[in-house]
Amino acid sequence: MTDIATAAPVRTIAFVLYPGITALDLVGPLQVLSALGQAGLGHEVVVVADRLEPMGTDTPLALTASHTFADVPSPHALVVPGGDVATIRAMTDERLLAYLRGASAGAEITASVCTGALLLGAAGLLAGRRATTHWMYRNLLGEFGATPVARRWVEDGPVVTAAGVSAGIDMALRLVSRMAGEEIARTIRYGIEYDPEPPLGPLDWDAAPRATFAPMVEAILRDGLADSPQWSARLVGRA
Amino acid sequence: MTDIATAAPVRTIAFVLYPGITALDLVGPLQVLSALGQAGLGHEVVVVADRLEPMGTDTPLALTASHTFADVPSPHALVVPGGDVATIRAMTDERLLAYLRGASAGAEITASVCTGALLLGAAGLLAGRRATTHWMYRNLLGEFGATPVARRWVEDGPVVTAAGVSAGIDMALRLVSRMAGEEIARTIRYGIEYDPEPPLGPLDWDAAPRATFAPMVEAILRDGLADSPQWSARLVGRA
Repeated sequence: MTDIATAAPVRTIAFVLYPGITALDLVGPLQVLSALGQAGLGHEVVVVADRLEPMGTDTPLALTASHTFADVPSPHALVVPGGDVATIRAMTDERLLAYLRGASAGAEITASVCTGALLLGAAGLLAGRRATTHWMYRNLLGEFGATPVARRWVEDGPVVTAAGVSAGIDMALRLVSRMAGEEIARTIRYGIEYDPEPPLGPLDWDAAPRATFAPMVEAILRDGLADSPQWSARLVGRA
Repeated sequence: MTDIATAAPVRTIAFVLYPGITALDLVGPLQVLSALGQAGLGHEVVVVADRLEPMGTDTPLALTASHTFADVPSPHALVVPGGDVATIRAMTDERLLAYLRGASAGAEITASVCTGALLLGAAGLLAGRRATTHWMYRNLLGEFGATPVARRWVEDGPVVTAAGVSAGIDMALRLVSRMAGEEIARTIRYGIEYDPEPPLGPLDWDAAPRATFAPMVEAILRDGLADSPQWSARLVGRA
């Protein structure tokens, strides 16, 4: 396989896949940016992983990447999805973290969705940045030297972080505007008919069911960091 | 593999996978309904396909189902995603249509996302129903005996159809309300942080770029129905 990232003038947008992710964290923004890739403006979208075999998700679906990490060492943009216990566990996956550091170093955009921000944090890429993540994990961002911000997505120079799961779609459209202009972003919205009408109206965040989610989140942190006393000491009980 | 659909009292929600789908058509509602599956209320979510191997999508990602059609002959609910040329081509895939007819016969809910409605139509499941699909294909629904409705999703008894791509998320939340109540639907919305803030605000449908999309849609219909003179005569030029 050729190293497509070096085949100028294509700008490669690399989505990172690892086992156990939240499927929509990846597929929401992937659908948006794949439409940009098909627009013929010089963007190529790939999904990169440690290996090219089906990987489980938090749904019954398994996902297979298009390229290995080695194929795409220097993408133009990097998007890192999150998940629950699998993502927390991946915070100590040194192969994955090494890829994130290397790929981010030359990238113009390093983005995350949901708890993907914790992987950027574990890789040292959030230090000194304003950032967001899933609302139940937002308090943890300070442990990575980041300033937590309660917004749908947060842009701090090259680092763009989205809130939980579905927020990746909104962030990806913003990235399209940044890379190709608002006209293209709007056309993609018509293409995927993205004019949401969530049943039950807007959510009341003051009434968010924190008590329902808190025990799950603590269990996820405890399980995911069981083999990492250092991260465990810093994160468990802090969400 | 056991036939999980017969293991009462589990209610099986089966997402249908076939080659070339629009990934978000499947993964949006799958993420929502997988959360229902994890809520411990007796719902089990599966992804069914002709075979258990990675299938390409309209993105660089390949998807693998969890069960074969034969494993899940009688689901409680069926959800059929759409796509572009691959979906139009699937309108003449008799194995797929036979599965849709058989599975739908005993299902309490038969749902589609985007052009998945055309597959329901080709299977004869839209006759006499009010239905919707991607806005650029909506005019075609009459050819299947359905009444086209311009809404985000349309419920006509057991048949629930969603508009294009991202509309599957909204429809799936409505299905959760129907199957488990609004409280669960709202909790799932918090879980996936589904409180959209699309960049650039609401879309103006009177200004929808029909002329931009029309040639693509006609090419998709022509290519997808090249081997089916009958459907070709009825659908090409009618979108």
